[in-house]
Amino acid sequence: MQNLPKGCDAALLFNGDSYSGPDANFLYHSGISADNTVLVWSKKGKTVVTSTLNARRCRRQSKHPVRVLAPGQRFSQLIPNLLPHRAKILGLDMDSISASRLLALKKAMPAKFVDISQQLQSMRAVKTPREISMIKKASHKSLQILNSLEFSASLSELDVVRQLALSCANEGVEFAYSPIVATAENSSLPHHTPTKKKLARIVLIDFGVKMGGYCSDLTRCFFLGRAKKEREKYEEAKLVFGKIVEGMHGCDTSGKLVAFSDAAAKSAGWQKMPHAIGHGVGLEVHESPRLYSGNREKLQHGMVMAIEPGWYGAKFGVRYENEVLYGKKCKVLL
Amino acid sequence: MQNLPKGCDAALLFNGDSYSGPDANFLYHSGISADNTVLVWSKKGKTVVTSTLNARRCRRQSKHPVRVLAPGQRFSQLIPNLLPHRAKILGLDMDSISASRLLALKKAMPAKFVDISQQLQSMRAVKTPREISMIKKASHKSLQILNSLEFSASLSELDVVRQLALSCANEGVEFAYSPIVATAENSSLPHHTPTKKKLARIVLIDFGVKMGGYCSDLTRCFFLGRAKKEREKYEEAKLVFGKIVEGMHGCDTSGKLVAFSDAAAKSAGWQKMPHAIGHGVGLEVHESPRLYSGNREKLQHGMVMAIEPGWYGAKFGVRYENEVLYGKKCKVLL
Repeated sequence: MQNLPKGCDAALLFNGDSYSGPDANFLYHSGISADNTVLVWSKKGKTVVTSTLNARRCRRQSKHPVRVLAPGQRFSQLIPNLLPHRAKILGLDMDSISASRLLALKKAMPAKFVDISQQLQSMRAVKTPREISMIKKASHKSLQILNSLEFSASLSELDVVRQLALSCANEGVEFAYSPIVATAENSSLPHHTPTKKKLARIVLIDFGVKMGGYCSDLTRCFFLGRAKKEREKYEEAKLVFGKIVEGMHGCDTSGKLVAFSDAAAKSAGWQKMPHAIGHGVGLEVHESPRLYSGNREKLQHGMVMAIEPGWYGAKFGVRYENEVLYGKKCKVLL
Repeated sequence: MQNLPKGCDAALLFNGDSYSGPDANFLYHSGISADNTVLVWSKKGKTVVTSTLNARRCRRQSKHPVRVLAPGQRFSQLIPNLLPHRAKILGLDMDSISASRLLALKKAMPAKFVDISQQLQSMRAVKTPREISMIKKASHKSLQILNSLEFSASLSELDVVRQLALSCANEGVEFAYSPIVATAENSSLPHHTPTKKKLARIVLIDFGVKMGGYCSDLTRCFFLGRAKKEREKYEEAKLVFGKIVEGMHGCDTSGKLVAFSDAAAKSAGWQKMPHAIGHGVGLEVHESPRLYSGNREKLQHGMVMAIEPGWYGAKFGVRYENEVLYGKKCKVLL
């Protein structure tokens, strides 16, 4: 049972009209996936507020009491009744709600609204054993699918995306994000969008699945033919990855991990990467901890991060990526 | 070429850190799908602002000049240089940007920010012939996939979702939204989430694909065995749908269409539906026009709406849904 975020008398978590699945913080604290639903969270406990349309689903999923809006009633009309007397400071997930929602709430409710998005992110950063096992399962599944792919010079990047989609459908899992499949010079674009380009010497694939709500995020390179230079660089990426995982337990902040990773890449003769060395992974594919230079956020045992060293040249690029569990000794989740 | 939204000196459209595909208004006005990118739109024209990571992709996709942030530079530092002298009122898509984004912009830029989300929505409501043909293509493809499904009492709702996912992967198309597959009493829940329940007499499927960015949204019911009552109700739904399509050209506002649809449902002896009779469809599966009682928004020729009459009883429910092109004579897009 997590404590109410600090600095507010109550928190309001919204799950809006979301087609990309439920809001991660809302899902984490409510256990509910229904859209157009609000979690009202105060010292008195948690209450779920929803419309008639989602009432049955909320009651089935929720451990907390469910209140249903009357026809035509707005959230801002019912919510005040559920708040403790004198609750004046309300916490909102400002990163997740729309600006319209904030403006409407300000108009409808005479309260002070404060941002609790960073706190909500941090609350999800240290994973429970169950969460770690879900991420590991998702990583396993991704790697199994990656290893079942077939490559040939007659296939395009988009053909590989199709193979990935078919495998996911067969396995009953979802993409955690749109996969990147990049061949030849496209592999030097970290954010490449797959095209009809036919596969050449190197194929970089950044791919993850979602299982039980939890994401994986892996990158592997595959080769057609000799591809000597490409294979060599990829081996370097694996070495840099190994160095980081071996030593990262000694970095007690996000910023120190970034500096340590930069040093590992530099010792391989690499230039500075155009993207972060990694990011937290969980209900979202990019979440806390955020890894950027100078960030003093403490790293804690039980955090799970994707670590993804990459090298990008003019003719091709390589990247190697897995989920890593932070602890006394850091472990690759595979 | 669309005119700058009214009431502002310039508009800023953001495509954030979006895993569910690009923001529809941003994509519509910029032609770009890259994330973490801003469209600065004034009487001087449009400029795209992005980071180094997405620069190549933006340059490839954009008809407008692309400006790249210097390392460490923030959007709010570069944007003022791109605005006309004395631009003081800036339009934002408040429904789409996060509350955090609004608060950060207010802090960083001494301008007045106004909401242009409704204008941006309206600008996409009337479709071009190219857009109509994309929606029609997507509808065709959805129906073709629906008609290729196999049903038996040994399959579950989730097995049908898997069949849909496999077909989409085979056809190289994406889900427009998470499909609903609902059997027996689950079909009476308009927002049902598929379960392991085995297929019984009726299977309601609400399913659409995305092609070239455009969505389709169809609902069909399928039957195992005799299912006399269920088939009868489904025929009623088709009749109500047909009545609405035949007469809706006479409704010149959203509210009138709702009233007309309610009357059509009532004349079949149905109770009021727990959901709207439909919604606009385009780059988003739910978009303008919004169909709700009393809405005075004008309906215009070239708008495309999903029309979805449904009846929901205690033991089962039925729904029938297609995209309809609004015009002198309304046409089902199939």
